[in-house]
Amino acid sequence: MADLHLVVDRAAGGIADQIARELREAVRHGRLTAGARLPASRELARDLGLSRGVVVEAYERLVAEGFLISRVGAGTVVAPAATRSQDASERDPVVPACRPYYGRRSTSPDLNAFPRGRWLAAIRQTLATLPSDALDYGDPGGARELREELAAYLRRVRAADVTPDNLVIVGGVAQGLYLTVQALAGRLPQALTERLSEALAGGLPQDLEGRLSQGRAVHDLDWFVDRIANPAPRPGRVRLAVEDPTSLRQLPLLRAAGADLVAVRVDEEGVDIGALAASGARVVLLTPAHQYPTGVVLAPCRRAELIEWATVTGATILEDDYDAEFRFDRDPVGCLQGLAPDRVILVGSVSKSLAPGLRLGWVAAPAEVAESIRQVRGELDLGSPVIEQHALADLIRTGDYDRQLRRMRREYRARRDALVRALAEHLPEITVRGVSAGLHLFAELPRNWDELSTVETAQACGLAVERVAPMRHAPGPPALVMGFAQLPAHRADDVVRTLAERLPR
Amino acid sequence: MADLHLVVDRAAGGIADQIARELREAVRHGRLTAGARLPASRELARDLGLSRGVVVEAYERLVAEGFLISRVGAGTVVAPAATRSQDASERDPVVPACRPYYGRRSTSPDLNAFPRGRWLAAIRQTLATLPSDALDYGDPGGARELREELAAYLRRVRAADVTPDNLVIVGGVAQGLYLTVQALAGRLPQALTERLSEALAGGLPQDLEGRLSQGRAVHDLDWFVDRIANPAPRPGRVRLAVEDPTSLRQLPLLRAAGADLVAVRVDEEGVDIGALAASGARVVLLTPAHQYPTGVVLAPCRRAELIEWATVTGATILEDDYDAEFRFDRDPVGCLQGLAPDRVILVGSVSKSLAPGLRLGWVAAPAEVAESIRQVRGELDLGSPVIEQHALADLIRTGDYDRQLRRMRREYRARRDALVRALAEHLPEITVRGVSAGLHLFAELPRNWDELSTVETAQACGLAVERVAPMRHAPGPPALVMGFAQLPAHRADDVVRTLAERLPR
Repeated sequence: MADLHLVVDRAAGGIADQIARELREAVRHGRLTAGARLPASRELARDLGLSRGVVVEAYERLVAEGFLISRVGAGTVVAPAATRSQDASERDPVVPACRPYYGRRSTSPDLNAFPRGRWLAAIRQTLATLPSDALDYGDPGGARELREELAAYLRRVRAADVTPDNLVIVGGVAQGLYLTVQALAGRLPQALTERLSEALAGGLPQDLEGRLSQGRAVHDLDWFVDRIANPAPRPGRVRLAVEDPTSLRQLPLLRAAGADLVAVRVDEEGVDIGALAASGARVVLLTPAHQYPTGVVLAPCRRAELIEWATVTGATILEDDYDAEFRFDRDPVGCLQGLAPDRVILVGSVSKSLAPGLRLGWVAAPAEVAESIRQVRGELDLGSPVIEQHALADLIRTGDYDRQLRRMRREYRARRDALVRALAEHLPEITVRGVSAGLHLFAELPRNWDELSTVETAQACGLAVERVAPMRHAPGPPALVMGFAQLPAHRADDVVRTLAERLPR
Repeated sequence: MADLHLVVDRAAGGIADQIARELREAVRHGRLTAGARLPASRELARDLGLSRGVVVEAYERLVAEGFLISRVGAGTVVAPAATRSQDASERDPVVPACRPYYGRRSTSPDLNAFPRGRWLAAIRQTLATLPSDALDYGDPGGARELREELAAYLRRVRAADVTPDNLVIVGGVAQGLYLTVQALAGRLPQALTERLSEALAGGLPQDLEGRLSQGRAVHDLDWFVDRIANPAPRPGRVRLAVEDPTSLRQLPLLRAAGADLVAVRVDEEGVDIGALAASGARVVLLTPAHQYPTGVVLAPCRRAELIEWATVTGATILEDDYDAEFRFDRDPVGCLQGLAPDRVILVGSVSKSLAPGLRLGWVAAPAEVAESIRQVRGELDLGSPVIEQHALADLIRTGDYDRQLRRMRREYRARRDALVRALAEHLPEITVRGVSAGLHLFAELPRNWDELSTVETAQACGLAVERVAPMRHAPGPPALVMGFAQLPAHRADDVVRTLAERLPR
């Protein structure tokens, strides 16, 4: 137990503030080191002659800031990160936020809010009730119980048009996209085989094999010739349109799954349907609820045009519903999938609502495609871990998943408001866009600002930001993606003011 | 709580037997229905005036048989399966085993023995100590903590030559093989590109593009031409040798990952090295510790020849260590990987030691290959769920994983002995092979027996069996794979005697 000497001035008011400040200083000056255990709030309150609520408030604030970690059954301890970056904070004692403790991805949720106790209870419930047989190899498409709960949830909350048979449980959106592209690409070669036999008429070009085997590496060329003669059983490729700008992280994954990518520009109403139609794409990957990174919501007229395009051309829309649970300023917009379940495949996960580390997500697709995805998964990793699937089903069934979302929606809204307010006050040159939903905003910089140095300065101030230029196919104004999920509302003003002071303007 | 009227004849002895029989009858005749909760063993013992141990023994037996389910914190209830198949058991009241409650795969472990309480404690410990940051997107290669525990475990128990940097955590052996084949295949095209440019000398055959575009489908042919001009960024293929006979379930997975398969025969000393060398394979997938399905252990001289072959040709050996934890009659044989860590990639999982439903496994590979596998996984699903990775690390760290293995080794050895004894007594025509390790034996049938009808009869008697003929490339004598992990020792004689009576001989 850490030995604490805190000085509190009762007359000055803001007692929780004072306690938090004293504790911060104790960590910063090494009086409290990483892993040190703090007194229980009840004890500290008694020692200081204060009410327990005040101490709890101070602890909670420091947990939110990343100074402390509150552990189920293990009390409150000093976070490793808090002391690791002690040097940096000593250089700048006024701005304790100037340490990158707000997480690695700008769009990650607040992981301090992960409901550890509730998750443990769900695991306990699962282990107490799951028949032993369910611990065997399961359905690669996912546990029926979870698909039932999720189908009901998606119908209710996202206005999706799904049944358990349309759903495949996957290891997050990344795997969902990988499997879906493989399933879609796998179906093309059949049609292609017919067209190829047409194109090649009399078979393989006579001299091709001869030319190829002039080299020495005849043996290794077998697969190559085999591909030409018999493309059908090989995984195929599919022309897939992505939004411009788009999430960089998904591109290697889409290519690896079999997508040949073409970029289609996004304007202030969402994806440009004319450009999409001209792209020759058979599949398009969209983020209609909250475009990544611009935050644009797909306009109603565009939604209609998009579905018209898909229906006429037989194209498939992949709807990445990555942060749709968090919508702040207006009624929820149902997913596209609910409008055209035959043409839209909905992909989602718990990475924003609970934690990315759970690696749990879903794909809602037409039954035939869902079956293909399930089969592809059966030839890849045989499905997701079963215990955690049942734990998530328990969370949804009991309503606790909804309660967690409501709680976090309120919290994130407050954090968004605080960041937007701070930016308007201290950095009015920045145009803030895309704030109606999600866990990030799109900050457009003045034309003459340097995106790279701005992002570096913002990161040094503890903001979770990413550059937009690398996400662009066509050039555009300098801009940042700025996450607010991990930035406590009461810290936003400090952090942004410091950023404003440091930017060379 | 179920209302129970059990009649026990104290003078007759075998009290636990009597209780078990009474309870079985109560289930079969509907007095106890699925989900009905049984009295606590202490209460029932008191009611009957017996020692508690006798009641516990009866309950445990019925749990092992699948009649009852024992749930952490929720007591003992009647299993759904027990009443579902009531009709079948009423047709044949003498042989309650004649229901397929012994699991779906012949080689699945006894899932009633999954240490639920211990697993829950590991999850609790993880949730109490894991920093919030660890709930974010993690290392796609797996949590460092688990890789450290596993490396030490594999060095100690399997004589593997690994460090945490050689290890990638994967979602089971299936995914481990998929990723490894992708990583190995992905490295070929680079070499191939060079050979191709050599072979093609002056570029693409002039008339190829023209011939291809004579057809109408010019647009779709783009990918095809692109493949010829630029094979490098495409996933490649690799010629991979598999054992004959081999596990059927892995073949589609290996093909999907990029393997062109060639079968190499297995004799009583393991894989035929001459045939392997003649196959032209660059990679071979083996089960050296306990060949699947024959149960043959790779002979010491073959091990040496195999490694010699790989070293000289630069080939890679994939060592599927699927059931090596269970070795009964002799000292453990270290894995091949420990002999030639540069040429051997070791793949294993907890599917036999804990449960397939956990979907947790590992690949130990040369550091460079491990890094490729990690990258391939980063472009697929971003890694395994983190909480369960830490839970497994906790199980290994505390020694409870070893204790569970020791306990199950004793249990499985007793079950194997019972099944082997029963086969020798009631079906002496069957030649039993491959019993020194693992969770199954290889039962060679007389030449004139029909494999298909024998397997059907054995399944109808409740045995976990599979046909071998579909696993063979070259023809061989009729044979069955027979799992014993889920067959309680005290039931083996009954089941096999019934099978012997039913087989038309």
